[in-house]
Amino acid sequence: MPGPVMICINSPTPHMRHQLLNDVHGQRMFAVVLDTGEEAMSCLQKFVRVDKIASAQLTGIGAFADVTLGYFDWNKKDYIGNPVHEQVEVASMIGDVALSPSGEPTLHIHVVVGKRDGTALAGHLQEAHVRPTLEVVLNEAPAHLQKVHDPQSGLALIRPKQ
Amino acid sequence: MPGPVMICINSPTPHMRHQLLNDVHGQRMFAVVLDTGEEAMSCLQKFVRVDKIASAQLTGIGAFADVTLGYFDWNKKDYIGNPVHEQVEVASMIGDVALSPSGEPTLHIHVVVGKRDGTALAGHLQEAHVRPTLEVVLNEAPAHLQKVHDPQSGLALIRPKQ
Amino acid sequence: MPGPVMICINSPTPHMRHQLLNDVHGQRMFAVVLDTGEEAMSCLQKFVRVDKIASAQLTGIGAFADVTLGYFDWNKKDYIGNPVHEQVEVASMIGDVALSPSGEPTLHIHVVVGKRDGTALAGHLQEAHVRPTLEVVLNEAPAHLQKVHDPQSGLALIRPKQ
Repeated sequence: MPGPVMICINSPTPHMRHQLLNDVHGQRMFAVVLDTGEEAMSCLQKFVRVDKIASAQLTGIGAFADVTLGYFDWNKKDYIGNPVHEQVEVASMIGDVALSPSGEPTLHIHVVVGKRDGTALAGHLQEAHVRPTLEVVLNEAPAHLQKVHDPQSGLALIRPKQ
Repeated sequence: MPGPVMICINSPTPHMRHQLLNDVHGQRMFAVVLDTGEEAMSCLQKFVRVDKIASAQLTGIGAFADVTLGYFDWNKKDYIGNPVHEQVEVASMIGDVALSPSGEPTLHIHVVVGKRDGTALAGHLQEAHVRPTLEVVLNEAPAHLQKVHDPQSGLALIRPKQ
Repeated sequence: MPGPVMICINSPTPHMRHQLLNDVHGQRMFAVVLDTGEEAMSCLQKFVRVDKIASAQLTGIGAFADVTLGYFDWNKKDYIGNPVHEQVEVASMIGDVALSPSGEPTLHIHVVVGKRDGTALAGHLQEAHVRPTLEVVLNEAPAHLQKVHDPQSGLALIRPKQ
């Protein structure tokens, strides 16, 4: 894994900033912006836990100094990590927030990144260091999306309540 | 085309599940989650038709056991299908819903998928089998987005009403 | 850069069309659809300036006849342009709108495109000509997202107000 994880929010610098863009009957929309050096997964995870977000969709763009892209190996039932040790554009970041089986707000994010020559890499976001910015817009819903343990894959998967 | 299309909703298993996350003045937000074996286009198409969704935006992430990516050949005015016969991460799924010229809710979805080594493939979603999950968030608008036949391309394209 | 920039809105054809899908307490949702020949960045930029959109998130799909993908070279602190001179699927378009340091609504868009054989390219959207359509859904928030000059990168970056 490239580099140590930076602590965000509680450290003076670097620090993630966020802004509440709207709040209509509990459907809040946030902008969350990360700075150079911040580790994306731990910072965004902290944001959704501190703000107790139990159900949300997010999109984002920006750039990373490095990133590790996960691929779920169906035979091994485990993630392979593909580290990318170079500056890349974050061409697409899509994610969701749901409650883990134990009730904790939990992020799930996938990204597509573009290299210097424009070639694209894609996968599950395991870890990434921002440089110079990551701009995320998160749409929260006033609902609880619940994950449950899936015995076949070994993963916690969202189980909508019908 | 890889494998038969699975019937969702009306079959006991596998079955797509959905949850209404919010409803503010007719702007509904849904989570729709597909399980292993479900064919993404037919299941999601069924969802928007059963729920009579005439205008929506969606994003999603997950993984496929196989997928066929379409490319619109401008000279032939037809889609080429690029089949991918391996497990891939769904790194980005973006789509919209509008009414076909005959008035049926119709999905249009594009995806980016990531292979075992992180390399990315991208295109129009023709067909794909989920494994183990596909997590979609759909934002409906209380409006009618209408498609009309475009003689130049031969396709039905969205024509906003101004 | 491939081809001249087309003027949209004010020219009879080609012309961008848009439709207001919803307006809930100032959170407006728009569909914006571009036609063959329109240059995506200048048309969408015009849309957000004419409509005075100070804070928004957008997603889109469609196809381009050509596109130039930008990559931010961290050492040179400048963008490299990777031109793509062929028809591609727009597999993912994600962007945001914020106010420039001088107060102008400003778009920031990243894309992933898919070539004939399904291979993906990705980067910052510098310029692109639509063919046959680009379908964008934009979610505006009734807030002001402000950009400020970042001395380290030389770019104007979003600075959320906390």
